[in-house]
Amino acid sequence: MKINKITGLIAAPFTPLYQDGNVNVDMIPQLANNLKENRVQGAFIIGSTGEGVSLTREEKEKVVLAWQEEQTEDFKVIALISSNSLREGQDLARYASEIGLYGIAILPPFYFKIKSAFDLASYCRELASVVPDMPVYYYHIPALSGVAVSMYSFLKEARTIPNLAGIKYTAPDLYDYRKCLTFEEGRFDLLWGMDETLISALAMGAKGGVGSTYNYAAPLYLDLMAAFENGDMAHARELQSRSIEVVDVLIRHGGIPAGKYFMKHIGLDCGEFRSPVGPIANPQIFSEDLARINFDQISSVVRESV
Amino acid sequence: MKINKITGLIAAPFTPLYQDGNVNVDMIPQLANNLKENRVQGAFIIGSTGEGVSLTREEKEKVVLAWQEEQTEDFKVIALISSNSLREGQDLARYASEIGLYGIAILPPFYFKIKSAFDLASYCRELASVVPDMPVYYYHIPALSGVAVSMYSFLKEARTIPNLAGIKYTAPDLYDYRKCLTFEEGRFDLLWGMDETLISALAMGAKGGVGSTYNYAAPLYLDLMAAFENGDMAHARELQSRSIEVVDVLIRHGGIPAGKYFMKHIGLDCGEFRSPVGPIANPQIFSEDLARINFDQISSVVRESV
Amino acid sequence: MKINKITGLIAAPFTPLYQDGNVNVDMIPQLANNLKENRVQGAFIIGSTGEGVSLTREEKEKVVLAWQEEQTEDFKVIALISSNSLREGQDLARYASEIGLYGIAILPPFYFKIKSAFDLASYCRELASVVPDMPVYYYHIPALSGVAVSMYSFLKEARTIPNLAGIKYTAPDLYDYRKCLTFEEGRFDLLWGMDETLISALAMGAKGGVGSTYNYAAPLYLDLMAAFENGDMAHARELQSRSIEVVDVLIRHGGIPAGKYFMKHIGLDCGEFRSPVGPIANPQIFSEDLARINFDQISSVVRESV
Amino acid sequence: MKINKITGLIAAPFTPLYQDGNVNVDMIPQLANNLKENRVQGAFIIGSTGEGVSLTREEKEKVVLAWQEEQTEDFKVIALISSNSLREGQDLARYASEIGLYGIAILPPFYFKIKSAFDLASYCRELASVVPDMPVYYYHIPALSGVAVSMYSFLKEARTIPNLAGIKYTAPDLYDYRKCLTFEEGRFDLLWGMDETLISALAMGAKGGVGSTYNYAAPLYLDLMAAFENGDMAHARELQSRSIEVVDVLIRHGGIPAGKYFMKHIGLDCGEFRSPVGPIANPQIFSEDLARINFDQISSVVRESV
Repeated sequence: MKINKITGLIAAPFTPLYQDGNVNVDMIPQLANNLKENRVQGAFIIGSTGEGVSLTREEKEKVVLAWQEEQTEDFKVIALISSNSLREGQDLARYASEIGLYGIAILPPFYFKIKSAFDLASYCRELASVVPDMPVYYYHIPALSGVAVSMYSFLKEARTIPNLAGIKYTAPDLYDYRKCLTFEEGRFDLLWGMDETLISALAMGAKGGVGSTYNYAAPLYLDLMAAFENGDMAHARELQSRSIEVVDVLIRHGGIPAGKYFMKHIGLDCGEFRSPVGPIANPQIFSEDLARINFDQISSVVRESV
Repeated sequence: MKINKITGLIAAPFTPLYQDGNVNVDMIPQLANNLKENRVQGAFIIGSTGEGVSLTREEKEKVVLAWQEEQTEDFKVIALISSNSLREGQDLARYASEIGLYGIAILPPFYFKIKSAFDLASYCRELASVVPDMPVYYYHIPALSGVAVSMYSFLKEARTIPNLAGIKYTAPDLYDYRKCLTFEEGRFDLLWGMDETLISALAMGAKGGVGSTYNYAAPLYLDLMAAFENGDMAHARELQSRSIEVVDVLIRHGGIPAGKYFMKHIGLDCGEFRSPVGPIANPQIFSEDLARINFDQISSVVRESV
Repeated sequence: MKINKITGLIAAPFTPLYQDGNVNVDMIPQLANNLKENRVQGAFIIGSTGEGVSLTREEKEKVVLAWQEEQTEDFKVIALISSNSLREGQDLARYASEIGLYGIAILPPFYFKIKSAFDLASYCRELASVVPDMPVYYYHIPALSGVAVSMYSFLKEARTIPNLAGIKYTAPDLYDYRKCLTFEEGRFDLLWGMDETLISALAMGAKGGVGSTYNYAAPLYLDLMAAFENGDMAHARELQSRSIEVVDVLIRHGGIPAGKYFMKHIGLDCGEFRSPVGPIANPQIFSEDLARINFDQISSVVRESV
Repeated sequence: MKINKITGLIAAPFTPLYQDGNVNVDMIPQLANNLKENRVQGAFIIGSTGEGVSLTREEKEKVVLAWQEEQTEDFKVIALISSNSLREGQDLARYASEIGLYGIAILPPFYFKIKSAFDLASYCRELASVVPDMPVYYYHIPALSGVAVSMYSFLKEARTIPNLAGIKYTAPDLYDYRKCLTFEEGRFDLLWGMDETLISALAMGAKGGVGSTYNYAAPLYLDLMAAFENGDMAHARELQSRSIEVVDVLIRHGGIPAGKYFMKHIGLDCGEFRSPVGPIANPQIFSEDLARINFDQISSVVRESV
């Protein structure tokens, strides 16, 4: 299978919920349009930001189907398979393949945590084998999954999975990341998953990234990537610092909840929260933080770019 | 709701699988009989040992139904709710309630890990509220769930959940355990979850335990509890050391796989494995270990007791 | 070398400091008398409670000398060797030996952390070899040292160190602890280091313990041990709960600082603090906590026993 | 106090030992010359690589004195203060100041681990205050010290320490690193401590680094920095990959031991090892690894640059 690498930004969208807590798929076209208008290359859906693990199987399928309908040649959709049950994961993967989704990503089981690269590759092979025609990414996020196998050692074992496309790399280990990038002459797609350090990954050779802040601040990062490409490191750094201010606010107010407030602020209210994620504790301080970091200016940048 | 505390042993059964990997519910009556004949008080099903997280929702329901049919007044069945999706967890809880299962236990979400006692109690309240007539246990197993909230602080927040019966306590913190035991004059049921240190929990005041070695070595522990009760500490310690030898072999060969081999050895072959759990790497060394610890003698003790 | 096991309580004394921060060795006879009057069997000095790691080499020697002068046949003194420099550790061990101290304990290096049982035993052998006539204990306290080697695997490698007497075991792993107790027919001395769970260690077979609360509440624990010995488990548990209340206050207000306030309360003011240890943040709440747990009653128990 | 920032490379030298294990200060001039000839800007001595924690106080002073004699305006020497005893640390800091050393770095106490930025700044203030005329660096290396306070929060508390020059930053958190770089208009010197990801730190705005591979492969990194400066990112990345190959070998064979073998290979035999650091387990495989990564070519680059 030929791997097409992804260049540019992939957003990890929020999953919109109605006030009764049900999934609001009707809003997904709006979310997709916002991303397309902001030159985002695709969506990594029902991932961490999309609270995939908190959705029922039916809800996952509904969301996958709704995003599939927004998919185009220039807007790829990748769904995270996040079940601890391999069988359920295989079922969802098959469904995604049947409706023509671009690709899937695999979260390793995170209750019984796999410790060796060999076992991790075996697990991924079992899952990837049911969708032989889809590009499959491994989702490396040890802070949440607890699976801390080095990705370089993983690739050495997983290289024979025919449809393995690469890794969504959400960990700060740029040493391991560089080794993955150059593995077998760079055959794998290494999507960087930490928006706040994108510039450091670009320096190592990253070509694209997947993140949640690309939902509402993509132009900032496109400018950053352009500045980096043009050798204007000073400007790229300045933009990274703006991004860092956004991430500071996210962390201060709890990642996903704060992200949903950012979305609301740019006019895309994604609605309610599902336990264990809840609303932010102090909306007043959040508003002050928005003003302090001039979020309106960042979001106006978004609109201008639109 | 009046809490009936559990005295004695609850086994955490394996989930039998056919050679094609499908769940073999036909074997469950045999497993239940073995437990009953060995004076085990109940079953904690689709838990860690039962690989609940690796089953599909339909499989979970099938297993729950099969065990429900073995339930008697003297043999209680408790099902672990282990979904990261609160909604799916509520659905399974409702199902268990509808078919008349004795109780449920709650595994906290283990991807988005709850950090505060307050939030943990809120989550449990949302789940417990859909089955107001069932006793609900919290499953404390920080080594696997990553949720490290102290149980004493949890009880202080969760005390108002009307149907909270207690905790399955699978952690070595006997300091916290004792505080839970004496909380509000001992109103909660604190089931000890570490077979290899049962004697230490008894010293603190434990009345019962939930564990996987009670599937094949219950008489050993019943003898241990009797010796402890009679003040024959030396004998109780000796039996604990026998139990420790069993657990050493479990750990050496990988917990669940080795446990299934123990079952096979006592004539209850639970069949295949489901990824990420797999067969033991070295059956030859395992057999030697069985001989070294005189497992046959322990299992013959089982049969004699039967 | 013949190992004499220690039965009963060993206190881990505070190191008294003058107001200018210098070590106050003149107070040590008073501290020793208090322990002797309370039937404590010895002192584990310049350990965690004694802030050994925060003392200069000269200060350590001064403290060791002062305690040596309080040593009797019935009151053993063991000094912790806590330097990361093997050479400095060997020097202090030699000094302790030369002045006739009973024994030493070894804290493993905690910057370059040893990962294997073999390497850990090698390190201890190098240190123990310079004092061939002294009993040497290994100090297992993974929460502070970061050295998490299982003690059973350590004993298998360290068994050939001629003067290894045993382990001060400050970790909640009673499974590993039991295996150490029964290793080679119980040849090693396994001093339990967690006061708040002493009863659980007694159940496993502990004969003695080393701890900081034995400085001011020894009679409580002697009563606990007597009740346990007499099979009065209910009373032993009650006393353990009293101990737990004391430890709760310790933890709430920061271990060593709160301990020094307890000492002051029983009339043995150990003076100032040395950075990074500092005074407690809220003495008012501390006083309220003392009243709440009836510390005066515990301390009056002390005086009565005296 | 005016802070002069360091641009370029600072090596963290090994401490040479004689065959009897004593410190070989006679070799230090040779080590210094090698660094100067390779355009290294200074030495960070008795640090992790220099096994400072394993030296006695007298040995530390001897090494500090020997390096001080190699100090020039263009070759700065900074000594790590690594004692857990503040008093001993202050003594060594005073000594370093008295003999005219350029600066010191502070390792936080790593037995009693400080948890808050405020307490960490207080500790550093107490140490820095005894050498008011020396630049003082904080040594951030959470993987070894266990002190995980974010450096940005530390700077907010430590900003009032008059002689705080900056941080040796040995952690992969480039998000926190960037925030430190821009703190108060970039007033602090942020020396990057992970050789294998230097390019990523340069992208964030690093101007210099401290590391162990600069002892034997400085020209590689000087070329890397030049390529980065000139916008030749492809070449800079290639050189980083060469550096990564060196670090792979280091990690495979145990950091410090392997480093000493590298030194021997370039003709600077630093001699023996001090426990807990020991010789590498498999010199034969190490030699094969040297050949595989063409270490001779890297070291010949060194000689050419000389």
